[in-house]
Amino acid sequence: MEDSVDGVVDEYLERIAPADAAAMRAAEERHAQLTKPAGSLGVLEELSVRVAGMTGTCPPQVPQPAVVTVFAADHGVHAQNVSPWPQEVTAAMLANFAAGGAAVNAFAANNRVDVRVVDVGVATPVEQLDIVHAKVRPGTRDLSQTDALTEDEARAAIAVGFELADKLIQDGYRCLLTGDMGIANTTASAALIATFTGATADAVTGRGTGIDDAALAHKTSVVRAALALHDVAASDPLKALQAYGGLEHAALTGYILGAAANRTPVILDGVIAGAAALVAQAFHPAVIDYCVAGHRSAEPGHAVALKKLGLQPLVDLDLRLGEGTGAVLAYPILTCAVRALAEMATFEDAGIGQ
Amino acid sequence: MEDSVDGVVDEYLERIAPADAAAMRAAEERHAQLTKPAGSLGVLEELSVRVAGMTGTCPPQVPQPAVVTVFAADHGVHAQNVSPWPQEVTAAMLANFAAGGAAVNAFAANNRVDVRVVDVGVATPVEQLDIVHAKVRPGTRDLSQTDALTEDEARAAIAVGFELADKLIQDGYRCLLTGDMGIANTTASAALIATFTGATADAVTGRGTGIDDAALAHKTSVVRAALALHDVAASDPLKALQAYGGLEHAALTGYILGAAANRTPVILDGVIAGAAALVAQAFHPAVIDYCVAGHRSAEPGHAVALKKLGLQPLVDLDLRLGEGTGAVLAYPILTCAVRALAEMATFEDAGIGQ
Repeated sequence: MEDSVDGVVDEYLERIAPADAAAMRAAEERHAQLTKPAGSLGVLEELSVRVAGMTGTCPPQVPQPAVVTVFAADHGVHAQNVSPWPQEVTAAMLANFAAGGAAVNAFAANNRVDVRVVDVGVATPVEQLDIVHAKVRPGTRDLSQTDALTEDEARAAIAVGFELADKLIQDGYRCLLTGDMGIANTTASAALIATFTGATADAVTGRGTGIDDAALAHKTSVVRAALALHDVAASDPLKALQAYGGLEHAALTGYILGAAANRTPVILDGVIAGAAALVAQAFHPAVIDYCVAGHRSAEPGHAVALKKLGLQPLVDLDLRLGEGTGAVLAYPILTCAVRALAEMATFEDAGIGQ
Repeated sequence: MEDSVDGVVDEYLERIAPADAAAMRAAEERHAQLTKPAGSLGVLEELSVRVAGMTGTCPPQVPQPAVVTVFAADHGVHAQNVSPWPQEVTAAMLANFAAGGAAVNAFAANNRVDVRVVDVGVATPVEQLDIVHAKVRPGTRDLSQTDALTEDEARAAIAVGFELADKLIQDGYRCLLTGDMGIANTTASAALIATFTGATADAVTGRGTGIDDAALAHKTSVVRAALALHDVAASDPLKALQAYGGLEHAALTGYILGAAANRTPVILDGVIAGAAALVAQAFHPAVIDYCVAGHRSAEPGHAVALKKLGLQPLVDLDLRLGEGTGAVLAYPILTCAVRALAEMATFEDAGIGQ
């Protein structure tokens, strides 16, 4: 494995450049001519200007078709009783995604987003499912005891995400959305967010899918001890993925880097994607130019992550499900923003004096 | 006109009943069985339960197709220099809507919402446009000097909205969205919102499409003087429409009453719709069971109105355009919420123990 993945992250990073400032200026100028009071589309104006910068064109094409990729993996720290759900639920939910029965399927069908499901490290065998099989290992090691991943494993999982992003964009997708599934993944997310933001375990650890006060206190103590055990510098994103995982965080990091390398917008879902985006930002700050925050999760670490990323969420409706649901919910807002910039008449077209 | 409209509001009100509590309970029970942690879809769970209550079925049908109706009219108070835009812009924007060049057209095309444009009282002749012609009179009288409408005019405009809602639902639409166009309509909205909430002119008067501090102070003084002149009781919605107009507010009031009478969800746009919903609420409090707040406008009176209506906006992105843009932006959130309730697998279906 070493030969194939060693140094591969550097190759990815070389492909990433900041947003196109000239296209953004052209988009701002175009907005001033469209048939609406200046600034009256609020956040959507800024959003459409950012898409012009991402794609380097004004007006940008509408970012469609879109695909949400649900990266699934398990976490060794599940052994520390950080979640009320058995680990087998990860695999059961993959079957549910494949059968079209999950929330992300309902949202995606509604919003014309395709769904891909990727096993990047589920503990339970799922070979029978019609999904993308790219298992790096069956779950991480327990981050509270040891490194969750070796360096090679972390690199391999990053490569899964990056190469899939490349392929999806080659296949014609013009917007990538993040999704995730993995029992105990809010624990790894909390550790990653604390690493890159400097926040305390208390500030970033939440109730995940729903735990009581005592369980939250226990989960927070696991995160706190893990941060002390590994003591990773915010400047070392690869080491952070080794320390805490998860395999889906590493794959999402690669997927976000891959979107940026292809000048394609990527809509982040919730706290798992936020943690992965912090890793990606530590690899290359310009990746954030290509990121759109789909929503603000109810999980407390997510707001901390968004602040560090400098992103404003489009939807804020107390979702805390994951799967990509928040990103899929936000997708039509992104396309509306771009369509307004691309399709509206100018004052001159409409014969209206300003 | 008197014979045809006298008493007609009472007939409308007799058709309105509260949401179906049994369907709402069934929806809550169904949510507890779906493959997600309890409550993890946040506001969307409550929203889908409300739709079950509106339609009286569980799971409810997905509320599609949808139509946004842009009620357009002018305001006599424009003579008081409350807006920087000439009154002719109302008519010019109607031509823009009809040609598909406005923001609401771009959003509606993106979100598969049909657009209807209704002249309920534009001052400029617009007979040449391919829109719904239902002009009650060419603009209201100046609310700062006299009643904006006679009682018959107010009733006639209400009837335009109610009867159109009836027709649209007969034609197969399962979700109505509000839209509006009318230079100076935030001034009438401010007066209506102050009337029904008890808020001061300062609290509810805003910059509309964009005015400076001096113009805002003048606009606020116009609203304050009008409130003192007419002194309408919050218990008299018809009198409030007579005092302040506008014709589009009266038509929107009828449209909202019509949606409720047909047990059909209506998504409210911004401050104009919020003001009309307060009028409708004063006619019959149960209409609010059928209202969904699409977004929170940047206009300060809107938050005041939403609080009184008891509605939480789905989108909060600093839009202040009107036209129905906020309602159209929110529409996919409503359909996602209902599709999750209607289409997700149960834990039993997916073989997952709770």
